[in-house]
Amino acid sequence: MYSFRNDYSEGAHPQVLQALTDTNLEQTCGYALDPRCDEARETIRRVCAAPEADIHFLAGGTQTNLLVIAAFLRPYEAVIAPFTAHISLHEAGAIEATGHKVCTVDTPDGKLTPAMVAAVADAHTDEFMVRPRMVYIADATELGTIYTRAELTALRRCCDERGLFLCLDGARLGSALTAPGNDLTLPELAALTDAFYIGGTKNGALFGEALVLPRPIEHFRWHMKQRGATLAKGRLLGIQFQTLLADGLYFDIARHANDMALRLRDGVAALGYDFPVPSPTNQQFPVLPNAVIEKLEAMGYAFEPERVIDGAHTCVRFVTSWATPQTAVDRFLQDLAAY
Amino acid sequence: MYSFRNDYSEGAHPQVLQALTDTNLEQTCGYALDPRCDEARETIRRVCAAPEADIHFLAGGTQTNLLVIAAFLRPYEAVIAPFTAHISLHEAGAIEATGHKVCTVDTPDGKLTPAMVAAVADAHTDEFMVRPRMVYIADATELGTIYTRAELTALRRCCDERGLFLCLDGARLGSALTAPGNDLTLPELAALTDAFYIGGTKNGALFGEALVLPRPIEHFRWHMKQRGATLAKGRLLGIQFQTLLADGLYFDIARHANDMALRLRDGVAALGYDFPVPSPTNQQFPVLPNAVIEKLEAMGYAFEPERVIDGAHTCVRFVTSWATPQTAVDRFLQDLAAY
Amino acid sequence: MYSFRNDYSEGAHPQVLQALTDTNLEQTCGYALDPRCDEARETIRRVCAAPEADIHFLAGGTQTNLLVIAAFLRPYEAVIAPFTAHISLHEAGAIEATGHKVCTVDTPDGKLTPAMVAAVADAHTDEFMVRPRMVYIADATELGTIYTRAELTALRRCCDERGLFLCLDGARLGSALTAPGNDLTLPELAALTDAFYIGGTKNGALFGEALVLPRPIEHFRWHMKQRGATLAKGRLLGIQFQTLLADGLYFDIARHANDMALRLRDGVAALGYDFPVPSPTNQQFPVLPNAVIEKLEAMGYAFEPERVIDGAHTCVRFVTSWATPQTAVDRFLQDLAAY
Amino acid sequence: MYSFRNDYSEGAHPQVLQALTDTNLEQTCGYALDPRCDEARETIRRVCAAPEADIHFLAGGTQTNLLVIAAFLRPYEAVIAPFTAHISLHEAGAIEATGHKVCTVDTPDGKLTPAMVAAVADAHTDEFMVRPRMVYIADATELGTIYTRAELTALRRCCDERGLFLCLDGARLGSALTAPGNDLTLPELAALTDAFYIGGTKNGALFGEALVLPRPIEHFRWHMKQRGATLAKGRLLGIQFQTLLADGLYFDIARHANDMALRLRDGVAALGYDFPVPSPTNQQFPVLPNAVIEKLEAMGYAFEPERVIDGAHTCVRFVTSWATPQTAVDRFLQDLAAY
Repeated sequence: MYSFRNDYSEGAHPQVLQALTDTNLEQTCGYALDPRCDEARETIRRVCAAPEADIHFLAGGTQTNLLVIAAFLRPYEAVIAPFTAHISLHEAGAIEATGHKVCTVDTPDGKLTPAMVAAVADAHTDEFMVRPRMVYIADATELGTIYTRAELTALRRCCDERGLFLCLDGARLGSALTAPGNDLTLPELAALTDAFYIGGTKNGALFGEALVLPRPIEHFRWHMKQRGATLAKGRLLGIQFQTLLADGLYFDIARHANDMALRLRDGVAALGYDFPVPSPTNQQFPVLPNAVIEKLEAMGYAFEPERVIDGAHTCVRFVTSWATPQTAVDRFLQDLAAY
Repeated sequence: MYSFRNDYSEGAHPQVLQALTDTNLEQTCGYALDPRCDEARETIRRVCAAPEADIHFLAGGTQTNLLVIAAFLRPYEAVIAPFTAHISLHEAGAIEATGHKVCTVDTPDGKLTPAMVAAVADAHTDEFMVRPRMVYIADATELGTIYTRAELTALRRCCDERGLFLCLDGARLGSALTAPGNDLTLPELAALTDAFYIGGTKNGALFGEALVLPRPIEHFRWHMKQRGATLAKGRLLGIQFQTLLADGLYFDIARHANDMALRLRDGVAALGYDFPVPSPTNQQFPVLPNAVIEKLEAMGYAFEPERVIDGAHTCVRFVTSWATPQTAVDRFLQDLAAY
Repeated sequence: MYSFRNDYSEGAHPQVLQALTDTNLEQTCGYALDPRCDEARETIRRVCAAPEADIHFLAGGTQTNLLVIAAFLRPYEAVIAPFTAHISLHEAGAIEATGHKVCTVDTPDGKLTPAMVAAVADAHTDEFMVRPRMVYIADATELGTIYTRAELTALRRCCDERGLFLCLDGARLGSALTAPGNDLTLPELAALTDAFYIGGTKNGALFGEALVLPRPIEHFRWHMKQRGATLAKGRLLGIQFQTLLADGLYFDIARHANDMALRLRDGVAALGYDFPVPSPTNQQFPVLPNAVIEKLEAMGYAFEPERVIDGAHTCVRFVTSWATPQTAVDRFLQDLAAY
Repeated sequence: MYSFRNDYSEGAHPQVLQALTDTNLEQTCGYALDPRCDEARETIRRVCAAPEADIHFLAGGTQTNLLVIAAFLRPYEAVIAPFTAHISLHEAGAIEATGHKVCTVDTPDGKLTPAMVAAVADAHTDEFMVRPRMVYIADATELGTIYTRAELTALRRCCDERGLFLCLDGARLGSALTAPGNDLTLPELAALTDAFYIGGTKNGALFGEALVLPRPIEHFRWHMKQRGATLAKGRLLGIQFQTLLADGLYFDIARHANDMALRLRDGVAALGYDFPVPSPTNQQFPVLPNAVIEKLEAMGYAFEPERVIDGAHTCVRFVTSWATPQTAVDRFLQDLAAY
């Protein structure tokens, strides 16, 4: 009936596809060195109020994460992340394949606190242990939660005190920045982090992440090429991000995704189902009876299991996107209620 | 005026873009596990007469090369390639970044022979040296030359005798298989190699390479994820390759690129310029006086230097593609003649 | 007064040093290909009842651990280990530097159980996660505990059911195999593991670990050379292990180390101090008041902190060795009692 | 009869072994943090006139080479070396296993010149290629040749102009610095290089290389631990280097090795045999008829083939050491003459 499996179940937002079509026969040079990419870079610097920032366009999140970590760290340095982080659990060891350890922290809501960071840093004392050198967080997190300005500022301070880089996985940044309760902005992210990215794949692009390095680091393009991350027709990424970011489309469609997610959440909660970790973003994690799950799947609804609660219940994940029609949410809620 | 700089100066062939547009709002699961990718895989197996082959879709050539090498080799094993190979010179150390040495061979035309392979293999005798385990060639080569069936068969035999894998970079495979003098086919490539890829980026796709593993190797999808090469909206690759390969579009447009290249070559040669390495494919390498080069660039023609011949002459590279209009070639030849 | 800091505070057991002296001017070929190493390998095969085993001599534990893991695993494969394992905490990311993730398990006594292994293996389900492929344990563990035959057999069965390698860090294997309560033997280790090593550095050798691969794996000597682990004068390792193992010296001196440790343990316990994790081997971990620790250190005793218990108490580590005289233990106990 | 196969055919110089014996039962802390190592470090700083230098003790040459390269370079950076360099040919891909490419240069005598370095550096122009960042030479080279002060100074100037590190493999440094024609000293090496090592394995130690970093680099001990290169009983290395360097023993015994090599060379040359690359150090490379080689081997002489000259002749390598008695050389020359 409808797939809530992911926020990349469709192609691109129609305006993005149109822009690709409109520019299709232009000749440009490759590797994101073209005017379309330059234009998108200027737009990103503007919306981030970061005129000195280096902007790189990449094809996906794992690629971006492994590149940032490999580019910032020396071989014996490690990254601190929540155990539930994408780089910890769901990248098939991509970070370790670049030679770096991920020091993980158990955290109830997918967020790191200064105390957690300090505990890991303090536990690594000599040359027989890795040197934690970077804090890697996501906003929104893998559990749908978001950071407040106060929280991010506190993490930054903690990182400064300990000589740690602070980097932010923004695969779902649009959803985070338009969520109820959010008080962070792109300029603040640029001011508070050493690297973050504006995720396109999960918010309207065919594919692509725009990495923002507020303080450029040397030779990042060499790192990209070495990891197979330099796109020949780099302009494809520039065109997409220019379309998404020049006039606010990125935020408009993220807000829509959130609206749909919260409508779904409220409807499901009204039916008495529990959400162990409250999320204000486009991922929602209710606990459903397994019998209900089977029924919904039999009706054609798609969504993913998150974790087993007990023999009869599973926490599942529903994801909405720019493409989710309100009718799909409402129909789903009706079907769930009818069960 | 016109850029002969590369075969990825434009977007996608219009039919490819149309197919992406037509399917844009379909919901599919991600990571190339969707029906569109399955369909493309079936098509590829059919055109390769390789019903058992494993097919993986990747975003670009360097990514594909490093993945194949990392997936086939053990840490101490090395790959034999021409010094001029992309994996040797133009991937910023991507292969070494996976831990593997590239043992290079000087070769006049960018092609390896069994004698060259044997010489490298024989020189590596004990555990103080790497173990050459794979031969990596390209068709067409980086110098535009192609392999004949007899040559590839001889390499295969040499590899079999020495326990070497034979892999083939097909970034410009369309141009190779439609070139005058070619007698190789996709089924023969599948029969003679352990891995090869059908390059999309340089022949009509927005981006993408279709890797063919005639004899599947274990857990290749883990390798992909670990290197950041798993595309969320994998269907984008399936749709493109299906469009290109189902009805021969791939070969039609490659043939056009070759026709334009040979028209350009013949015209340039008729003006008395030399081509040190004869190429039947869509890359042509004439030697031009530097004064001519400057003049052409001033007129707005774009192309790349290949190597310095002497203080007054440079070997340059012209590349044509599916998108090159005959008028551009003819206009260029007129302008060159008029000089 | 005396250092209980480690079991490598002195040089070699006098018989080992004598053997090195006796053979010093012999000419042999290098790289452990000499008759002295062959003799030691034969001895090891004999005492392990493993006539087909491959034996390699290495300089230290971290080197051996990283080599075994790198040699057995494919890039996307991971190793399961206790959080307290040397490979997890105290090798500065050596395993990650070979590209592999260590999946850690919290465990009260430093030992893994089949249930713990199963939980990790079951949690890794698809290509977005690493593939746990090896279980890595130590005997004795980093907390001084040991495995019984029944426990190791159960782990082996669990590994077989799930296609996992079982490897064992034997840096303190002598102490484990001569500890009260031990019922394992070298032949059983050879039968139950895919790799284990007989630690020399911590039991009488100047340096060196003898790696036993009951079922040889291909090209291990290439792995060694590639990691800088091939010793030019390999015979130094052969001579030492032959001296230690040919007539049981290895076990005699390990037993002495245990005797000293248990004498120390019993004396400390008699004074009312607690040992949170009971150890039958040459590492003992009492909880001492910080004031006592300072007093002992002021008297010249050396030992290492293990972890903070509370503001006034620390769990510390005492290590004995083949070189620890009983007088040193007794004197220490007197001094502690006198406090 | 006698092995000229290598300069590590015996154990240690008797004074070195005596020093190990004399200190055997001292208790020290581990990991080269002990007073014996401190003393050796002070000695090395003194003989190098490099009071700020960082000194690290390592077990072997390949380990030292891979550590220096991994510690100095960023992932996309490469090292320039002669094709005949140990790091190029005889380390089983150890450098590539740390992720770095070795850009090799064909050189007749195993030595690099500024022109060779410049050619490699100039050929690497953009982010599609590695960035050569380090020049790695050996003194003596793998062909027995040595650098003069003028040559090394010119290389340093070339490196400075291009932002390259200059590092020197000193596995046979003793032989180089005591060779006829040498005008380099340890203080000059410290002034002209970014890293070099004083090789112990091949000149009197049981094992060990003393790495000198004239300008310390951060966290080198982390690199060491991560690569499995931190020796538990680090003092073994301190004691050996103190014995070798405190009173000039190192140079005395290297001079002896050279004397023996030159006596052998002169004797062989007097019999009419050719030495294609003249060497003033302890490796000598005459061309011998294969029939002579077989005869000598049948008599029990051991030496290694270097390369095939033609069907009837082979260039072979003879190596002398501190342990080579003059009688062995003279007897060999008699036997060769008698043939």
